[in-house]
Amino acid sequence: MNQRPRIVLAFSGGLDTTFCALWLRETEGADVITVTVDTGGFTPAERERIAARAAAVGAVRHEFVDGRRRVWDRFCTYIVKGNCLRGGVYPLSVGAERIVQAEEVARVAVEEGAAAVCHGSTGAGNDQVRFDTALLALLPPGVRVLTPIRDLGWSRDQEADWLEKRGQAVDRSTRRYSVNAGLWGVTIGGGETHDPWRTLPPEAWPTTVDPEKAPAEAEEIVLGFAKGLPVSLDGRALDPLDLLAELGRRAGAHGVGRGIHLGDTILGIKGRIAFEAPAPIVIIGAHRELEKLVLTKAQQEWKGAVGEYYGGALHEGLWFDPVLRDCEAFLDSSQERVNGEVRVRLHRGSSQVVGVRSPDSLLASAGATYGEGAKAWTGAEAAGFSRLHGFQGVLAERLRARRAREAGEGQVR
Amino acid sequence: MNQRPRIVLAFSGGLDTTFCALWLRETEGADVITVTVDTGGFTPAERERIAARAAAVGAVRHEFVDGRRRVWDRFCTYIVKGNCLRGGVYPLSVGAERIVQAEEVARVAVEEGAAAVCHGSTGAGNDQVRFDTALLALLPPGVRVLTPIRDLGWSRDQEADWLEKRGQAVDRSTRRYSVNAGLWGVTIGGGETHDPWRTLPPEAWPTTVDPEKAPAEAEEIVLGFAKGLPVSLDGRALDPLDLLAELGRRAGAHGVGRGIHLGDTILGIKGRIAFEAPAPIVIIGAHRELEKLVLTKAQQEWKGAVGEYYGGALHEGLWFDPVLRDCEAFLDSSQERVNGEVRVRLHRGSSQVVGVRSPDSLLASAGATYGEGAKAWTGAEAAGFSRLHGFQGVLAERLRARRAREAGEGQVR
Amino acid sequence: MNQRPRIVLAFSGGLDTTFCALWLRETEGADVITVTVDTGGFTPAERERIAARAAAVGAVRHEFVDGRRRVWDRFCTYIVKGNCLRGGVYPLSVGAERIVQAEEVARVAVEEGAAAVCHGSTGAGNDQVRFDTALLALLPPGVRVLTPIRDLGWSRDQEADWLEKRGQAVDRSTRRYSVNAGLWGVTIGGGETHDPWRTLPPEAWPTTVDPEKAPAEAEEIVLGFAKGLPVSLDGRALDPLDLLAELGRRAGAHGVGRGIHLGDTILGIKGRIAFEAPAPIVIIGAHRELEKLVLTKAQQEWKGAVGEYYGGALHEGLWFDPVLRDCEAFLDSSQERVNGEVRVRLHRGSSQVVGVRSPDSLLASAGATYGEGAKAWTGAEAAGFSRLHGFQGVLAERLRARRAREAGEGQVR
Amino acid sequence: MNQRPRIVLAFSGGLDTTFCALWLRETEGADVITVTVDTGGFTPAERERIAARAAAVGAVRHEFVDGRRRVWDRFCTYIVKGNCLRGGVYPLSVGAERIVQAEEVARVAVEEGAAAVCHGSTGAGNDQVRFDTALLALLPPGVRVLTPIRDLGWSRDQEADWLEKRGQAVDRSTRRYSVNAGLWGVTIGGGETHDPWRTLPPEAWPTTVDPEKAPAEAEEIVLGFAKGLPVSLDGRALDPLDLLAELGRRAGAHGVGRGIHLGDTILGIKGRIAFEAPAPIVIIGAHRELEKLVLTKAQQEWKGAVGEYYGGALHEGLWFDPVLRDCEAFLDSSQERVNGEVRVRLHRGSSQVVGVRSPDSLLASAGATYGEGAKAWTGAEAAGFSRLHGFQGVLAERLRARRAREAGEGQVR
Repeated sequence: MNQRPRIVLAFSGGLDTTFCALWLRETEGADVITVTVDTGGFTPAERERIAARAAAVGAVRHEFVDGRRRVWDRFCTYIVKGNCLRGGVYPLSVGAERIVQAEEVARVAVEEGAAAVCHGSTGAGNDQVRFDTALLALLPPGVRVLTPIRDLGWSRDQEADWLEKRGQAVDRSTRRYSVNAGLWGVTIGGGETHDPWRTLPPEAWPTTVDPEKAPAEAEEIVLGFAKGLPVSLDGRALDPLDLLAELGRRAGAHGVGRGIHLGDTILGIKGRIAFEAPAPIVIIGAHRELEKLVLTKAQQEWKGAVGEYYGGALHEGLWFDPVLRDCEAFLDSSQERVNGEVRVRLHRGSSQVVGVRSPDSLLASAGATYGEGAKAWTGAEAAGFSRLHGFQGVLAERLRARRAREAGEGQVR
Repeated sequence: MNQRPRIVLAFSGGLDTTFCALWLRETEGADVITVTVDTGGFTPAERERIAARAAAVGAVRHEFVDGRRRVWDRFCTYIVKGNCLRGGVYPLSVGAERIVQAEEVARVAVEEGAAAVCHGSTGAGNDQVRFDTALLALLPPGVRVLTPIRDLGWSRDQEADWLEKRGQAVDRSTRRYSVNAGLWGVTIGGGETHDPWRTLPPEAWPTTVDPEKAPAEAEEIVLGFAKGLPVSLDGRALDPLDLLAELGRRAGAHGVGRGIHLGDTILGIKGRIAFEAPAPIVIIGAHRELEKLVLTKAQQEWKGAVGEYYGGALHEGLWFDPVLRDCEAFLDSSQERVNGEVRVRLHRGSSQVVGVRSPDSLLASAGATYGEGAKAWTGAEAAGFSRLHGFQGVLAERLRARRAREAGEGQVR
Repeated sequence: MNQRPRIVLAFSGGLDTTFCALWLRETEGADVITVTVDTGGFTPAERERIAARAAAVGAVRHEFVDGRRRVWDRFCTYIVKGNCLRGGVYPLSVGAERIVQAEEVARVAVEEGAAAVCHGSTGAGNDQVRFDTALLALLPPGVRVLTPIRDLGWSRDQEADWLEKRGQAVDRSTRRYSVNAGLWGVTIGGGETHDPWRTLPPEAWPTTVDPEKAPAEAEEIVLGFAKGLPVSLDGRALDPLDLLAELGRRAGAHGVGRGIHLGDTILGIKGRIAFEAPAPIVIIGAHRELEKLVLTKAQQEWKGAVGEYYGGALHEGLWFDPVLRDCEAFLDSSQERVNGEVRVRLHRGSSQVVGVRSPDSLLASAGATYGEGAKAWTGAEAAGFSRLHGFQGVLAERLRARRAREAGEGQVR
Repeated sequence: MNQRPRIVLAFSGGLDTTFCALWLRETEGADVITVTVDTGGFTPAERERIAARAAAVGAVRHEFVDGRRRVWDRFCTYIVKGNCLRGGVYPLSVGAERIVQAEEVARVAVEEGAAAVCHGSTGAGNDQVRFDTALLALLPPGVRVLTPIRDLGWSRDQEADWLEKRGQAVDRSTRRYSVNAGLWGVTIGGGETHDPWRTLPPEAWPTTVDPEKAPAEAEEIVLGFAKGLPVSLDGRALDPLDLLAELGRRAGAHGVGRGIHLGDTILGIKGRIAFEAPAPIVIIGAHRELEKLVLTKAQQEWKGAVGEYYGGALHEGLWFDPVLRDCEAFLDSSQERVNGEVRVRLHRGSSQVVGVRSPDSLLASAGATYGEGAKAWTGAEAAGFSRLHGFQGVLAERLRARRAREAGEGQVR
């Protein structure tokens, strides 16, 4: 009768989680169950390799879950609806998917009656917070969360030494960059990203074409949207995952979607990463321009604030705060009329919206054209409006000037 | 003894203000004083032409004022400090300068004891509101504001007919686009801008090079900032107006700074214009990246909100509301540490920040590097933080799940 | 065959709308249809009097509509959910109901094929904007909106003279105060309200008891809430209109709900009114305290901003902007867990929440008690959190101090 | 030659800091220097008692600092300018003063070349975060922050036992409430505050009169403000500390200033305390009403948001983030015209503003009176404004209705 405790490990097959698997077996005397969630970054070969690795480290069970559609449905759709770009540039390419990974780990932990779960985050980054928060929210009372990498604070060499002593083959070739790929983009850390005065060399970008080597000819695409989400490409209706894949290929071929994000980490220091996200960048850019055509000014102002907050909270692992459900309700409501088509021009690293049209356009419906004759109101009505718009500022300025004169200061500003 | 009332006219020498000058003489029996304020758009030849025009319509006096430095000092500096881009793209190229024009008109009206002032705005656009509001704020009680173009609502042909009957030579050639140039950029209205599905043809852009015909070679520049404002280019200290001119030339030669702005007008309809603003686009982009290095996350969040509001209020002619002074105080305070240099790469229509450095960098000062070993805190400290960050969301999720189970809904989200 | 145009008049039976009815008949040659919407302010006797008045001025038809439930469902519920208090005090007692009145006028106009509608607003207040905006949004193209009172700008005496010449009996006794009553409270204008240094005398408050003469004994009530709305009083489930009536009576007897609102009108001047709103004040106060128990901090912060905006936009007649639907979606979502009971103490003009409880309490669920031993985390976890919360501010301060020392300024702040 | 390390202890003379003093001597072998900062809560007798206590525990030096004026200048003034009330009720009575205490501790630590500093916070509350953050920001590198109470997690009885074994007399009588007094108010924790359904009994409030036993007669006071700060009472100019003392006495005698605050702690749980703050409540209430008279609507809206944020950040120990300097610049700018007098009526627990006047009143300067004839604009101007205010919402509603009809949904909302 097996009395060994069970521990469920979020497993990527890399050095850190390989170390965790053996460490848990040895120090906790545990049966380790590995769970790998595909959030868009795995080829079939990688999937094979991870399963083999799990077997090699003695996992009693390895589970592989395709989480891509959930990442789209639960996170990417709201990133689009909210036009969420951290620092105005970064479409939250990785981060939110940690929640899907945590959910699967928690689900397996419940099914297996596990005593603990484990993730391989270090103490330096954002992922530890995302995992911890999600696991704390989801796990039954008493199930511990183990984080040996963070606790030990070992170097990668120390981990490798420890593993080799236990007969594990370790690839010690350190890569210059640490690359993290998912459905919604790729991030590239390390190397020049640590020095804000420098940028990445051309060879460091893994999936997109160098803009200087991209086609001389521009390409124009048409994205169709329904209720705020992309539903077609050049007139063909596509499933979201297919649309992402095709759009990513085509935009990436023009060098579109590269960027560098200098931001604030959850723990309060500055961090800098490079990223490639051709499809998200094109989709969000197109979506934002379509909204300018169909939403009122007040909707855009409020959406701007809500989207900015939503993106930040999602980035910081706060997805479980119910305020995000309230924000989602706001965003969903706002997308009712975000229907139409957007023409985007792809050329040498830039994607530019050159046209938008919509059955819900507020431009078409005005009966007045900006800068032309205005049939929707008379000159006298415009004069009346103009007289009273800003009236309180006028009163305040007159009073200020009078008070300044009384104080002998003249009217000079 | 001259008993004719004096009227001060904001004069550009175009059809509308030429019409106003004669109309005021004829219908108001007024002596007309023309005031032209250079806010960055006039060549010496144009200046000559305007003065001649003023004489031709019988102005009793014509005054020309160089308002460029004031436009920079009073408006552009805060647009930079606030990273103000309407709709995320348009740097408020024209609009704020109306205030400087109104100030000069009001000054002359006081000096001349004028009975009224006049501006040539139509009832269709934003400028009427900017002029009216500023003039109402600045004029002594009893001085009227006249707007014959708005009141009459005539077509340009009707105005031309009326002028020709009075012996004025009129250039009836209608231009396809209406171009408005100033220190901070050029706007292009009319033509394809009225149809949001279309874009401008290459020949419609007056000052920048077509990105497809721009140099194949990228160019890199270094902008220096002190307290949030650009002070040097490639290491050479420059006066702001000189810096704007040189940067505009160099960036414009790479096709940088073109854009289309689909926005909301003050009167509540949608409007769409094209613009060229190479220097503002490069400066704001560089400034924003430098801020990411030196400001705290909270500063950036608040600056984002304050700048967005400030830009909108400035755009809508609300400059005299004292809340803008309060926002300026906020922005000034925030720029104390915005010092440093920014590397910007100009290439085929895009300007990209590739490096920033600053003696006030919060990245350098952390003693920890994102994604690397963290010397500024221990693993246990990180674990403690991670445990409690987001704790309230964790409590809320646990309670939600419990309540859902009690209600027989399962935990499924 | 009747060729006279039909005009639908929003009719209150007062001097202004009586004048309008006759004026429309005489100057427009119109058949006038009067529509009176009860939004909570009419006794049966008043209703009779208004119908008689409509007949006396020759209305071809008079329609009376009970709009109270719609006022509750469409407006008051969101004022509660959003805790909307203008200036922190005024629960928007009157204003939103104009929309219900406009809807009924527009409905009758369509049914009758009317050529125009008419409301009796002056050019001085907020109601003109609320009526105009709602009617413009709802009326078919071509139906005009007439506002003779605003257009003529006559004094009440001038109106009365004009009416008497046409044989209408007019009550010329001018009341010192103009009182406006509805479901959600009473406003009192005129008299001392025009001088911000003065307050109303005891006799000017029409429905509540003078706090100085209220019972010496305090009274405690218990309000029950479900999904953010009041559903019971002292344990008895009540229909909302009944609950409002009973709570208003009981709280008003203690002098609760009086206030003075010094605010900003839509047209940009300051305005000041007194109001009595015992039930709204008690309900909003109780609701807000209950939310503190069940909502997360982030929810309260966002709700504060959304509710403040929602109240202002509703007050300013902007109900038709779809952003208010988005805000309502946010507010609805946020109320899911706002269930429970609130103890309120009524005494001599003040209502004070003395207790709240809820099955959704986040206080009960924490497993930690503020200020006591904390079982939900260890001292080391708290220390880790404390170390990193505010870390960026710490870095910024250290850098500031270092830079100040380098500049020879010492560390003194 | 004394080789013992020096440790500077923030000392209140209570059980926790008495324990710390001895613990540091015994476990760290340290010379302990005690620093007590008066932030408004100490009588001369208490001051004596604290000094004696410091001697009794063997402090090598005891320093007493009067920090009251700094608490006023640095924190209370901005709480007034920002109308900061947590949860709409609590004027941040205690909390900010921790910064002044930390500053003094850090100053002495530098002067003494101390190896460490120590504060007596537990791991349960907010103060640990305030102290840690301020000390981290201010201490030279290498000076440790010690928190034995948090680290040990002992009960008060355990601490008392430990002290008695070392010959220290300990007052074991546990008080039902823990009271914290300062310049800006008193907080009362423990007892009924732990159960949100209950309130404090009359005897639990230490400094104010029970409203039910307060004078039957109301009292009216006049507060004078200059640039947003209180400068006179009933016409007499007073120093701020004197004004606080006198106003607190007079308002407290009417039972004014009591409240219960149910809020969110920094660590993420709910907390509930009672408080007494008669002077702050009267001052903030008066200040807010005066602002309504002199600030524009936009100023009030922005000040509302800035003040809410500022109060929260101050409460959460984030004072060193430079964004608070930016907020202070905003608030300072906004107070330029906040001059005038406010009449406040004190009666049986409530303070009510009954009148405001100001040389900077925007009400007086309008030339129009709300609800009366409007001389500042014509009826036609009002109609023009009314036509265009809300125009975009009108367009959106018309389009919505048309689209709904096309979809066969009718216009019904």
